[in-house]
Amino acid sequence: MTDFPPPGDKTALEGGAQITPRFNADGLIAAVATDVATGDVLMLAWMNAEALAETLRTGQATYWSRSRGELWRKGETSGHVQNVVELRMDCDQDAVWLKVEQTGAACHTGFRTCFYRAADEDGSLRLVETPPAGCGHDHA
Amino acid sequence: MTDFPPPGDKTALEGGAQITPRFNADGLIAAVATDVATGDVLMLAWMNAEALAETLRTGQATYWSRSRGELWRKGETSGHVQNVVELRMDCDQDAVWLKVEQTGAACHTGFRTCFYRAADEDGSLRLVETPPAGCGHDHA
Repeated sequence: MTDFPPPGDKTALEGGAQITPRFNADGLIAAVATDVATGDVLMLAWMNAEALAETLRTGQATYWSRSRGELWRKGETSGHVQNVVELRMDCDQDAVWLKVEQTGAACHTGFRTCFYRAADEDGSLRLVETPPAGCGHDHA
Repeated sequence: MTDFPPPGDKTALEGGAQITPRFNADGLIAAVATDVATGDVLMLAWMNAEALAETLRTGQATYWSRSRGELWRKGETSGHVQNVVELRMDCDQDAVWLKVEQTGAACHTGFRTCFYRAADEDGSLRLVETPPAGCGHDHA
């Protein structure tokens, strides 16, 4: 299935028993992947209808690469695949939550998660994840 | 601070020690809130520069309501505030992860999380969270 049913009204969206995704003007829906073991957010990416359908069908996280303008089978080149343990929709069906088993690093930088920096009140960022070996990041 | 420095190049974005958010064409950045105790994703919402700055300054999650077109101090009317324990930026600085202490329900439906339904391979949705009392949802 790539042709999802069109979204209904608020009641249907929130109470419905069928995925009816609300894609944005670019045909995309936000997807958050978390590590099923730790609960940590690994990445936030985007899916079009094809990516969402393929993720449901294969159980492997598939996104839409906005920069490359093509389907992005996570880990296809890096081997850092995401096995989807559970896929959830939010109340108004414009966001997806994937609980995944992550092989290797989720982030292209080599960090386990894309969210490797925490912000302080003054807007400064500090590293809160272990840097990958030889990544070249010069954080203290 | 509401005026964040402009985003730099890829190296600066990924290695920088300062928040330089990449807001989208609407001036917004995606924000994922997780429950600091359970790791569960509670909601995905949006922040403009003012909301991000206020969240950093106050430690209380503040978003931009796209439907109402106004700053949305989470819990201001419902009391269901989010105390921000940690705020992280992702590699290319177009997404924020908030680890929060959630008072009450995160979702306006009364569910603890907006992601109360899991999808099966055929696109059907099933309830995976405990419904709030008297919520009117007729899931089995």
